This record gives sequence, C-alpha cells and structure tokens, in this order.
Amino acid sequence: MGDAGGREFFTTRTVADAARGFRPRRRTPAETVPLAGASRRVLAQPASAPHALPGFARSTVDGYAIRAADTYGVSEGLPGYLTVTGAVAMGTSPAVAVAQGTAVAMPTGGAIPPGADAVVMIEYTAEAMPGTIEVVRPVAPGEGIMRADEDAREGQEIVPAGRPLRPADLGMLAAAGVTSVAVHARPVVTIFSTGDEVVPPDVAALRPGQVRDATATALAALAADAGAVPVLGGIVPDDPGALEKALRAALPASDVLVISAGSSVGARDQTASAVAGLGPPGIWCHGLAIKPGKPTLLAECGGSPGAAPGVPVIGLPGNPRSALVVFRLIGMPLIRLVGGCVMAPPDPSARARLSRDVPSATGRLDVVQVLLAGGVATPLFGASALLSPLAAADGYIVIPEEATGLDAGAEVSVTLYA
Amino acid sequence: MGDAGGREFFTTRTVADAARGFRPRRRTPAETVPLAGASRRVLAQPASAPHALPGFARSTVDGYAIRAADTYGVSEGLPGYLTVTGAVAMGTSPAVAVAQGTAVAMPTGGAIPPGADAVVMIEYTAEAMPGTIEVVRPVAPGEGIMRADEDAREGQEIVPAGRPLRPADLGMLAAAGVTSVAVHARPVVTIFSTGDEVVPPDVAALRPGQVRDATATALAALAADAGAVPVLGGIVPDDPGALEKALRAALPASDVLVISAGSSVGARDQTASAVAGLGPPGIWCHGLAIKPGKPTLLAECGGSPGAAPGVPVIGLPGNPRSALVVFRLIGMPLIRLVGGCVMAPPDPSARARLSRDVPSATGRLDVVQVLLAGGVATPLFGASALLSPLAAADGYIVIPEEATGLDAGAEVSVTLYA
Repeated sequence: MGDAGGREFFTTRTVADAARGFRPRRRTPAETVPLAGASRRVLAQPASAPHALPGFARSTVDGYAIRAADTYGVSEGLPGYLTVTGAVAMGTSPAVAVAQGTAVAMPTGGAIPPGADAVVMIEYTAEAMPGTIEVVRPVAPGEGIMRADEDAREGQEIVPAGRPLRPADLGMLAAAGVTSVAVHARPVVTIFSTGDEVVPPDVAALRPGQVRDATATALAALAADAGAVPVLGGIVPDDPGALEKALRAALPASDVLVISAGSSVGARDQTASAVAGLGPPGIWCHGLAIKPGKPTLLAECGGSPGAAPGVPVIGLPGNPRSALVVFRLIGMPLIRLVGGCVMAPPDPSARARLSRDVPSATGRLDVVQVLLAGGVATPLFGASALLSPLAAADGYIVIPEEATGLDAGAEVSVTLYA
Repeated sequence: MGDAGGREFFTTRTVADAARGFRPRRRTPAETVPLAGASRRVLAQPASAPHALPGFARSTVDGYAIRAADTYGVSEGLPGYLTVTGAVAMGTSPAVAVAQGTAVAMPTGGAIPPGADAVVMIEYTAEAMPGTIEVVRPVAPGEGIMRADEDAREGQEIVPAGRPLRPADLGMLAAAGVTSVAVHARPVVTIFSTGDEVVPPDVAALRPGQVRDATATALAALAADAGAVPVLGGIVPDDPGALEKALRAALPASDVLVISAGSSVGARDQTASAVAGLGPPGIWCHGLAIKPGKPTLLAECGGSPGAAPGVPVIGLPGNPRSALVVFRLIGMPLIRLVGGCVMAPPDPSARARLSRDVPSATGRLDVVQVLLAGGVATPLFGASALLSPLAAADGYIVIPEEATGLDAGAEVSVTLYA
C-alpha cells in the first residue's frame, strides 16, 4: 500500500505542459472510404475540385436569357420587346443561342445559352403577344447568372485536411464528383481496466467490496466521439506482470492504449511498472496538476528508437469520475492527434454566473461539474469516487492553473455535455 | 414554369409557428440494445438503479478503518494507539470487524469492516511498533467513508428518458449493472432527390445543364447526426406521378420522408402535388418565412384518421444551401422528435461582433453564414444556389423574425459547425 512519502509522483506536469509537450508522433495511415461513410472522418490530404463548379453558367432565377444591352433604358412606361426563340429545359444543353432582340425562356438552374449575358426575372416581363415578351426593367450584364466557376475553380481546395468532415463538406465533395476520399484510419484505442475489486458490468449480484467496471464503457463512448474504434481489453488483475502481458499483446493492433486503473495506490504503481516494461520512449509524466485526476500517467511505448513512433499510453486515475474528466481533457485530444485531426470540433458552451465560491490551488487545473439553470452555474461536489455528480451535471467549468479560485457571481464559461 | 402570380405559397408560416405548431405524433417504437452500442441513443423510459450504489460502504482514502471515538482528543503531541487486527483486500468482504481500540488497514475503495465508522488517512498515522499504529489527528464519524447508497439509492432514477445518452450516463448504467437498455428505434429517414438536371455524384463528366446531387449526401449526414438511419431513395425525374409513386413505395418503411426538390418552380409544385396524393392529414405549410429556404413544405401523410399517425414529410428548397439550412433548423429537430428526443443536445456557439451591416426583413427569419476570426463574424453572401459559402463558413447567425437587420459591431451568437 506504500507510505505517504512513496506517493509523490516522480514527474508531475501541468495540463498546459502536457498539451504542449506530450505530442506523440504516431498518426494512423490513410485509407479510402466512400463519401457516404465519410461523415466526421478526417481527410489525409485537402480535397480539390477536379473541374470548375457548377461547370457551366446557370440561371439563378426563373426568367429569360437575353442580351443585357437589349434592356438598357426600358421601363414600365417604355418596355422593350424581345422575340422568344426557344426555352431551355432543366438538365439539357441549350438548343438555341440568344441574338440581339431575342430571348430564351429559362428555369432557375438552367444552362445559359450562347450569346446571352444576363437573365431577366419573369417578374419583370410579360407576354406581349404569343412569341414576344415585354421587359419593363433594365438588366446589367451578369445579372441572374451564376458563373461556371463561381462555386469552385478547377483545382481549388474545397475541403481542408485535418478536421472532421462536416455535412456541407460532403455536399461540396458530392457536387465535385468526389465519391471516395482518403481519410486517416480511425485510431484503434484499446482500453484496459485493472483492479481486483472490478467486475464486468453484467455481474448482477455484487459481493461486498466489488464494483462494476463503469469506466471502460464510458471511455469507449468518449473514444468513439473522438473518432476512434474503441476495443475493450477487459479487466486485468492487480498484478504488474499480468498488465504488462496484456498491454504487450494489444500493442501491435493499437494506436492508443488506455489503462483505467484500480483505485488503490498499489494499482497506480503497477500501471507505471507495466508501462515502463513495454519499451521506449517510455513514461513522459506520472502525475498531472489537475483536480480531479492527479494520478495520470502519459507515455509512449513500443517504438524503435529513431524509427517507428511508439504507441501513446494514457494511464487514468482509479476513480471513474477522475478518469472521465482526464480522458475528456487529455485523452480525446490525444486520439484526435493520432487520427490526424488538427482542428478539433468546438464544444458547446454557455456563459453563466457561479452560485458560490469555488476554491482552487494555484498551479493546478480544477475541473468542476456544474448544474446550469437560468444562467446560474451551481457546482456539484462530492467524493471523487462518486460517478453520479458527473452523470447529473449539465457541464463543467475549468479553473486555470494561475487562478486561486472563483468568487460567487463570477462569470464563467460552462462547457456543456452534448 | 408558371407565372409570377402562381408563385405565391398558399400557406406560408413562420419558423416559430412551425416549431410550435408542426408537431407530428409519430414516434419510433422502443427496442432493446446492448449498453456498449447505446451511446447517443435515446432511452424510451428513465433508467433506475436496481440496487443501492456502490452497494457497500467504501473507503475513500488509504488508511485504517477505526471507531471515530477512539481518536477524540488525539494530537501530534498526544497520539492515540490502536491495535491493527487485520487488513481489507480490494474486492473482498472484510474478514475482521473493528472493535474499540482496534484498526483494520484499508485500501481506497475497500469495503468498510463491521464496527468501523470512519477511516483515518494513512498520512495521520504511523506504525508505533509492529501491530500497533499511532493516530495523530481526530476523525469524525463518517470521515473517509462513502455510504452504500451515496452514488444512487435503490430505485433512484439515474438516467432520464428523452435525451441522447452521454458517456457518463453509460458509466452510471454500467455501474448499476444495466447492460441493455430500451431506446427509441432510430428513425428511418428516406431522402429523395428530384430534378431532371440532377445526376448522381459518381457521374464523372457532366453535360451542360447537369448538376450532381450534392444535397442528398449532406442531408444523410445531418440526419445521422440527429439520430436517424438515412436511406437514399435516389433521384426521381420531374414528374409528379413518378415522385408520388416513389414516396408511396417508401412510406411503409419510413419514419420521415425528405424531398430535396429540383430548383425550378415546377419542381416545387410537383412536390406539393405528390405529397398531397399520399393521403391525410396532408400539407401543413407550403412556404416558410425564412431566408434562405422559403419554398419549404411541411406535411404529414399516409396516416389513418383517428388511428395511426402519419409520416412527417419535409419538402426542401431546390438550392442545396437553402435545403441544408432548412434541414438543420427544421428537419433535424423533427427527426429528434420522432426519435423520442425531447432534450436536443446543445450546439457549439461563440459570441462575436458583426463586421458589417446585415439587412433583414421583419417577419422573416434570416440565416446568415459567417466566417469567424478574432471575435469578428464576417457574413458570407452569394447566390443561394452556391454551396461554397456554406462549406467555407465557420457557423451561422440567426436574425429573428422581429428584427429589421443587424448593425456592424452588433454582438451576435454564432452557432458553430462541428
């Protein structure tokens, strides 16, 4: 169980240090997926338009393709008269050209016939006699027309690499005829649980002292939200040999390893020992200046010096709540990094006023779960072994390292759970 | 092609009206899914704890289970002495009870032995001689102990129905031994594209006048984000008979029908005619006071009067950008409603100042795409047939019905694309 002196972590870092300094080189390779399955995937290279879009000049209104010069000076009192020589049908190449004094009927989205330089809206025309329209408003060249390259020029980048594809991106790619894309493979995140007290969630009747593994299921959902394929590695007994063996077996098929520790001090030490056994580059920190979540381990393992990058490892605190807080702040960005995502999607948030003072120690990041109602954020406290404050919370606030706490009434930004 | 007079919509409603008044009764049935696959699914009934959690009194610290009364009055100068009669191992039932004058060694998370009412942290003890500790700080009853029902009482609701399950919810359910849950089935959303000009995205070479179907792919991604199973019904020619036949065929297997119209006026009329042919209750509105997106149709079809609710139908404007704007504001909430989600997840947002004046007409909701940089929101304009402003935007602002526009420098809330 160790003594008080033995509980000091040999390398405690701040969360800001970790965000800057713990930058594993591992990236998942590119793979090609159909566009229909590419939502939220991350492009490995920017996507460009293979040709100009829409690719032909289109009408933006219902009306008549004309020569703008034919309408100069016209008005309600002095309309211009044009001979209608045809009509453009949707989806077809125009069969007639527009010459001086003529007009071709146009649906919105139709292809502009040769010779026309504007489309007059139907509202500014009337049928004077069969085959002739009057135009009561002058039209400038280009009016009513979308240029052939107005949505994209040939070769123009239409979607950037490095951020999850959005619905509108998929629309642009479909419009450009890009029906498969090269994206980073989803990182495989293998999640181990440890602790002699931990049993699988499907154990109906617990013996005193036993707890079900709440953390792994929640971590898998968070990992999937960050773009990963989560793999549950199961529950490993409190035995450094067993954990090292399990990690080593998972290493070749994993892009990130996650260890959800048992809650005893011994379990934490065993995690460090097992991870150290996996080889270079090794442990980056064993302890983060964050509350809750101090006993967090960050490492890279199983790499070849000077060659293949190692597999990032995150060893989480034993309390489920602490583990989930740390995984959201540290683990999810790590998964995104490995999966090639350099522009994380924004989190929902809301401004609120604190209902009460919240103390905090300088040099430590504090994450406080809150209820949010009527613009007031009410902190939820309770032992960090309790999961219910996290499940009940509407979101959380972060008290940065440099602050010594927040006063009641302070305006805070609440990151909302979605 | 119709004339100007024929373009008035017979029932134009505001977006606020639609949100309040268009409330189809259809809900997907409940189905049972394993917890590991339940992330973001919506519980059909609230979930309760089948027994108290954690279910036994646990230590929250490393230390010794004791009787608090044995420490009253102790101090560094005058320690109390207790005989260590055993140790609790993680995950096991305590083998020894605590009596007056005795202590049992406890790991964090271990089960409190009978007779103990507090745990003294190891930091406030020292081994005086083998088998005896000295305690240098008094401890109150309950200190260092999490009660057996502190995370949840037996029967307590731990996760509400009606909102997408979050990772922490899954953790609570796993902790409670709930490994499968009754959730609303994902709504099947069948998406049709219409328009003689529209060709599938995999057509490599377009003829003049043809455009690829950008909208359906993007709509499918938005529908999936709202919890649906999207089904692409394909491209239907501009022919009311063909569209009605396609809709009718899809009706039995669909929870929501979406029609992405061609961009001509004729296509809009054809959508209304085809939808009307599907039977009661029929069209709720044909025209929304929103820019872009006015030619939006909302309906319920194929129900039996007084019996089964119909299938909600949303007919979208022909321009891809307008269609996606309307689908985000109207279609996604509709899908959530049908899927039993009464608490929509919050959207990410940011406060910003407008770079320029943005005009707007009273009585109409305006949705303006913006770039966001350095706290400044710069509107992106351009013909509503252009998709690129939507793909390039960081988010959008909404100018409500009652406003007549926004001035440069106005503070706005930008809903961010994630």
